[in-house]
Amino acid sequence: MNSQVGAAQAGAPAVEPVRGSRGRVKTGIVMLNLGGPSTLDAVEPFLLELFADREIIQLPFQRWLGPFIVRRRAPKVRKLYAQIGGGSPILRYTEAQGRGMIERLDRLSPGTAPHGFYVAFRYVQPRSEDALQAMRADGVERAVAFTQYPQFSCATTGSSLNELWRAVDRLKLRDAFVWSILDRWPIHDGFIDAVAETVREGLQGFSPEDRDKVVLLFSAHSLPMRFVNRGDPYPPEIGASVEQVMKRLGYSHPHLLAYQSKVGPVEWLKPGTGWVIEQLATRDHKHVLVIPIAFTSDHIETLSEIDREYSDLAARLGITHFRRAPALNERPAFLDALAGLVRAHLSSGEAHSAAYPLRCAGCVNPACRAIVNPVTAPVGQSQRGA
Amino acid sequence: MNSQVGAAQAGAPAVEPVRGSRGRVKTGIVMLNLGGPSTLDAVEPFLLELFADREIIQLPFQRWLGPFIVRRRAPKVRKLYAQIGGGSPILRYTEAQGRGMIERLDRLSPGTAPHGFYVAFRYVQPRSEDALQAMRADGVERAVAFTQYPQFSCATTGSSLNELWRAVDRLKLRDAFVWSILDRWPIHDGFIDAVAETVREGLQGFSPEDRDKVVLLFSAHSLPMRFVNRGDPYPPEIGASVEQVMKRLGYSHPHLLAYQSKVGPVEWLKPGTGWVIEQLATRDHKHVLVIPIAFTSDHIETLSEIDREYSDLAARLGITHFRRAPALNERPAFLDALAGLVRAHLSSGEAHSAAYPLRCAGCVNPACRAIVNPVTAPVGQSQRGA
Repeated sequence: MNSQVGAAQAGAPAVEPVRGSRGRVKTGIVMLNLGGPSTLDAVEPFLLELFADREIIQLPFQRWLGPFIVRRRAPKVRKLYAQIGGGSPILRYTEAQGRGMIERLDRLSPGTAPHGFYVAFRYVQPRSEDALQAMRADGVERAVAFTQYPQFSCATTGSSLNELWRAVDRLKLRDAFVWSILDRWPIHDGFIDAVAETVREGLQGFSPEDRDKVVLLFSAHSLPMRFVNRGDPYPPEIGASVEQVMKRLGYSHPHLLAYQSKVGPVEWLKPGTGWVIEQLATRDHKHVLVIPIAFTSDHIETLSEIDREYSDLAARLGITHFRRAPALNERPAFLDALAGLVRAHLSSGEAHSAAYPLRCAGCVNPACRAIVNPVTAPVGQSQRGA
Repeated sequence: MNSQVGAAQAGAPAVEPVRGSRGRVKTGIVMLNLGGPSTLDAVEPFLLELFADREIIQLPFQRWLGPFIVRRRAPKVRKLYAQIGGGSPILRYTEAQGRGMIERLDRLSPGTAPHGFYVAFRYVQPRSEDALQAMRADGVERAVAFTQYPQFSCATTGSSLNELWRAVDRLKLRDAFVWSILDRWPIHDGFIDAVAETVREGLQGFSPEDRDKVVLLFSAHSLPMRFVNRGDPYPPEIGASVEQVMKRLGYSHPHLLAYQSKVGPVEWLKPGTGWVIEQLATRDHKHVLVIPIAFTSDHIETLSEIDREYSDLAARLGITHFRRAPALNERPAFLDALAGLVRAHLSSGEAHSAAYPLRCAGCVNPACRAIVNPVTAPVGQSQRGA
């Protein structure tokens, strides 16, 4: 059994083992992410899981209303996935990122080698259980829960970590591995370098005489104001990423930040990306480069929402040159960043970031900020964990 | 006439001229800030000016309702100023910052010397007119409008710049000086260094055995959601400052960001600083260090709101160790930062930041982002100014 077990279970194409052998792994890196449906048949189950996550969505009569909403939404969402090739590419990219990361880690950090990666998606296979079982089979000793969201939110990394710890308990693996977590990296140098590289590539898509006219529109997934108002660290960490990328680019162009992908009737963080595009058009901007800043690989929000929906909107409104910076995906600079992050984390001996134990000011979830069997003193022994 | 002219008009204590002589100034640095009432008698006029600024506050029947609200609020605000020594220290600190800045600039940038500084407050004397008249008297050729707000908001720097350009027109000085603007500096290295220094000093106020337990609570002035929702750059730039300070501190402690000083019935950016303090108390945090991140000198929001109101609140709720990091004020590291910012700006030849010409996505103010007589091609000649 190796790190690909979850993928195989999900019916995704088998991928060659990352290491030459299926031998023992010393350090297992759990790559936490949302996940997405690999096939059209997986769309409805994916949405059902998402709408059942009470750490993110709270509905009255959720067990009935959640599936009701999903059944109404699923055909539309399935159509969007059909338009981008029949499924989400997130597993493929995550596996490529994992392979690139551990190849580098085995070279850079022989003391913690051999390394293995284990994908743990939140709402589709491979899930936390899949990752944990593969890790046990591979003989992992030291485990790192590595969020693939650069900026921390309780709606993303928070939910994934809580689910991981619940899965550890369900599988009775509380003492199986020594854990630490890499819970946020909004201005990590390697990450910022890689994003800046995508922006430069995106700018190359404009003709040289137009390049100076481009407006850089950073777009992050939005968040319900309920999270923002209780102090979720996501908005300031997004702002930090954006500013740092602009600094890395020498502030070469004007830039804006907007938030995309709002769903449902509640208030979300604004301004919305679509609305901002409309406003830019009314002021006769003709050249816009959208930069996804909160996700690290292509997904429905880049391939469909930006590349199709917003692109069509921009064209209709007279924005003649509308482009998107490529996602990080398998970019070597990003693989370097992932390996660099883990390497620095392992050599630091830290169990988590300083910020992690501090729950959101208005946290209403007692499960938050747990960590089982951490590499250093458990959270809760000091006031930091309060 | 010298740079102190405005202060003298406002009845503030006379300050010695900054340079040995009252000679010609080549480069004039206009220090833009909110300002505050220097005496208790100045409180009501200050509030009247603030409530008359339609770029910030829009009330129905503003000419009548504004003064009505001010007359009701003034006694309470006057009492707060009485408690902090009878007035705002902002003029005193701004002058000290100006002196320190131009002393350094004369040394660092002899090619643009002699330098002079000119205070332009938004709602009290010395105002834009005072600064402009002093500049003309001093024979200034090159003028830099230098915001003293590190993070850009239309409610602060935006309003100050618009008022400055209106004053230029009122005084018929459109061709008097060649202008550029230093409109934001949220992660300037020197600024971040200086803030990090204040945090370290603040931490020294806790006993060594408690120091590890401290929660760092960054507090910025809040902003009505009306601004946030139309894309004001303030929230992401605040987030950028906070993250960068934490990086400079080696992420030594857990941190949070909150927003203070909300007034009136409309929705403002949350979480509120007072509310966050309450939440920290309910989770038994006993050690809190508040760090002002959006203003550069002490003012009513530090000396009264944090040091008195929030400090009392914290004590009542059982936060036994509640302290505030000192404001930047006359700190040499901050004077170095101010001089470094202007020096780099002057040598860049830039008229403004790349971001400046791009109005907020939902900007409703046609006056925004003007710049008279800029050192390089006027905004509006390229699409950037659209």
